[in-house]
Amino acid sequence: MPVGLNPPSFIPPVAGIRLASAAAGIRKPDRQDLVLLEVAPGTECAAVFTRNRFRAAPVEVALAHLAAANPRALLINTGYANAGTGEAGRRDAQACCEALAAELDCRPDEVLPFSTGVIGEPLPLPPIRAALPGLIGDLSADAWVEAARGIMTTDTVPKAASRRLEIGGRPVTVSGIAKGAGMIRPDMATMLAFVATDAGVPGGDLDTLLREAVGQSFNRISVDGDTSTNDACCLLATGATGVAASPGSEAWERLRRAVTEVCVELAQAIVRDGEGATKFITIRVEEAAGPEEARAVAGAVAHSPLVKTAFYASDPNWGRILAAVGRAGIDDLEIAGVRIALNDVVIVSRGGRDPCYTEEAGQRAMDAEEITVRIDLGRGRDRAVLWTCDLSHGYVSINAEYRT
Amino acid sequence: MPVGLNPPSFIPPVAGIRLASAAAGIRKPDRQDLVLLEVAPGTECAAVFTRNRFRAAPVEVALAHLAAANPRALLINTGYANAGTGEAGRRDAQACCEALAAELDCRPDEVLPFSTGVIGEPLPLPPIRAALPGLIGDLSADAWVEAARGIMTTDTVPKAASRRLEIGGRPVTVSGIAKGAGMIRPDMATMLAFVATDAGVPGGDLDTLLREAVGQSFNRISVDGDTSTNDACCLLATGATGVAASPGSEAWERLRRAVTEVCVELAQAIVRDGEGATKFITIRVEEAAGPEEARAVAGAVAHSPLVKTAFYASDPNWGRILAAVGRAGIDDLEIAGVRIALNDVVIVSRGGRDPCYTEEAGQRAMDAEEITVRIDLGRGRDRAVLWTCDLSHGYVSINAEYRT
Repeated sequence: MPVGLNPPSFIPPVAGIRLASAAAGIRKPDRQDLVLLEVAPGTECAAVFTRNRFRAAPVEVALAHLAAANPRALLINTGYANAGTGEAGRRDAQACCEALAAELDCRPDEVLPFSTGVIGEPLPLPPIRAALPGLIGDLSADAWVEAARGIMTTDTVPKAASRRLEIGGRPVTVSGIAKGAGMIRPDMATMLAFVATDAGVPGGDLDTLLREAVGQSFNRISVDGDTSTNDACCLLATGATGVAASPGSEAWERLRRAVTEVCVELAQAIVRDGEGATKFITIRVEEAAGPEEARAVAGAVAHSPLVKTAFYASDPNWGRILAAVGRAGIDDLEIAGVRIALNDVVIVSRGGRDPCYTEEAGQRAMDAEEITVRIDLGRGRDRAVLWTCDLSHGYVSINAEYRT
Repeated sequence: MPVGLNPPSFIPPVAGIRLASAAAGIRKPDRQDLVLLEVAPGTECAAVFTRNRFRAAPVEVALAHLAAANPRALLINTGYANAGTGEAGRRDAQACCEALAAELDCRPDEVLPFSTGVIGEPLPLPPIRAALPGLIGDLSADAWVEAARGIMTTDTVPKAASRRLEIGGRPVTVSGIAKGAGMIRPDMATMLAFVATDAGVPGGDLDTLLREAVGQSFNRISVDGDTSTNDACCLLATGATGVAASPGSEAWERLRRAVTEVCVELAQAIVRDGEGATKFITIRVEEAAGPEEARAVAGAVAHSPLVKTAFYASDPNWGRILAAVGRAGIDDLEIAGVRIALNDVVIVSRGGRDPCYTEEAGQRAMDAEEITVRIDLGRGRDRAVLWTCDLSHGYVSINAEYRT
């Protein structure tokens, strides 16, 4: 059960974008497993990809295609990740692009391929090829939720978010979808996310916008500390509304806020639906001596299996948080300066149990489904925030049984 | 159930060392929870402690006492870790030393305190004080296994190891005990381990010997990547046999080998009895371009929850191993040079699935209770080995219910 997350009912269309989803039978029958996102001509695209050295074949192909052209279509399959598949995997990803390009009458390098699923097994091409005409026939500006459902793997609910704003008196939409429930750790980009706006933004500015938004959202989440081979996040700007935004303007600030909000909502949705998650945890580190150490402390707490199992048990075993802070690699950390709170309950002050702390207050904080861990280091003015979930029996079951 | 680990039946005594164990009722009744290790006068002691910045009170006190004197006694309690307890915790640890020193007629700084258990709650002194006379009355040279049992927390079997050797025609013994099943990650010293020999070794050399042995053993294991606030490893050399060993001699080499073997056996025992462990995994990285990157790759694989759950499921989902290698932080890793094998089954070559790999062979390797993952990076001549276990429902249960 996802934490505080309901399936989206409707996501407003983005002028210039049409979507479709199909059950192509790639790995399992009767399961939505192929999504097409069609992009109007002239659309700019920015993208960030996994920094894992074992990049999946579709990531390699998408990078090459992005360098050559703006995309006309994105093709996303689940079931197989087409990673660890070597040169044959690259040929398969390329073949998908060629097949779709032939149907859409565009160039193969105007198609970006994305895959997610089991690593190391080849991607079956015949079911994908066979599903393309039907997909194209089903394209609709209103199919964002269906597309969000079509890219799910171990996700239990589709993830989509949207914001409306006005630029120059005209309505602009930012809508996006994402998937990902395991193998989630902040490192450049996380899992698959596709966000689009009908405002016009030049390519270089769009890249800046995406990197800033990802830095505030997808790079701040962790389910299990594992970084996928296939992580990708695309931001599309169709310009179909005829309004444009460039840095420095007030319109740009509003667009930036909307894109960031959509990315944060999608990123948090991934954690809320994290594999086996029963709690949504915000780790907020304050008073750090630098952004790096703020992130290091937040990461040490977010990745600690002992902290995560204590959250699962609603056990105010705050010693585990303290121990995680202590091993975060700050050699000159003065523990007397450290203060830790769970929601509004101060548990640690001056490096030990706060004199006013009671087990009852700790238990009350831990019983909540959404918990903020605030860690003040007493060293400076830098801060970091990470969103994570607990480690439950559900996580073990899902990952011990994933391929069966 | 520990993996390939039986309870020790008998551990040979070390001349100059006597031990005793008692059920003092520190946190739970009828549970062995207090151990005394008495040390003959003139014994040299070397020790390494956790590098966690939140060092427990007994660690602080032990460090101060070691700087002042050679120990006459070690007092080890379970139940409460006396960590995160601030100045009061230090006073409590000191009070334990004073109480025992009064009974043994030695100085308080000749007593080293060690604690393990729940973090953040005060150590109850009355039951400890009350148990001391009985402990002293029970001291015996043959009580190594009882002592190993007395320091257990979530351990399911006592951990002890021993080696005999000859120096100058006379028998020398190295015996040791250890505890620890969770919050285990290599970083200087791990959990509690006490090793003693009746050979004589000067203090500085003993320190070298300990650090080398720890580097080959306790610093090479990981259960969950969490570093405890109380980790400690002591090496005692009583000299009671009248034989001495100093660096450069053949006797030294033999002693070094024996101490290292005892430490490796104890370290592996901790992993074999890791919380919820059903598999014993050896991660062996070869052909690295430096020792640091060899360790980084081994650690990334050993700490990956996805790899660990795949081992739990006996699922040859080798893509997870490959993804963990890919995110280990080697920016210029050429995936075409990477080769990965499970026991004798090559699964990855040239960065993709080995052409000869079959699912049946992978399944056969994964079905084993003890598995070696060998990762050749194809970059140089450095290597690293880490021992770890799988991530099971048992780990989640133990750590979700630890305080209940």
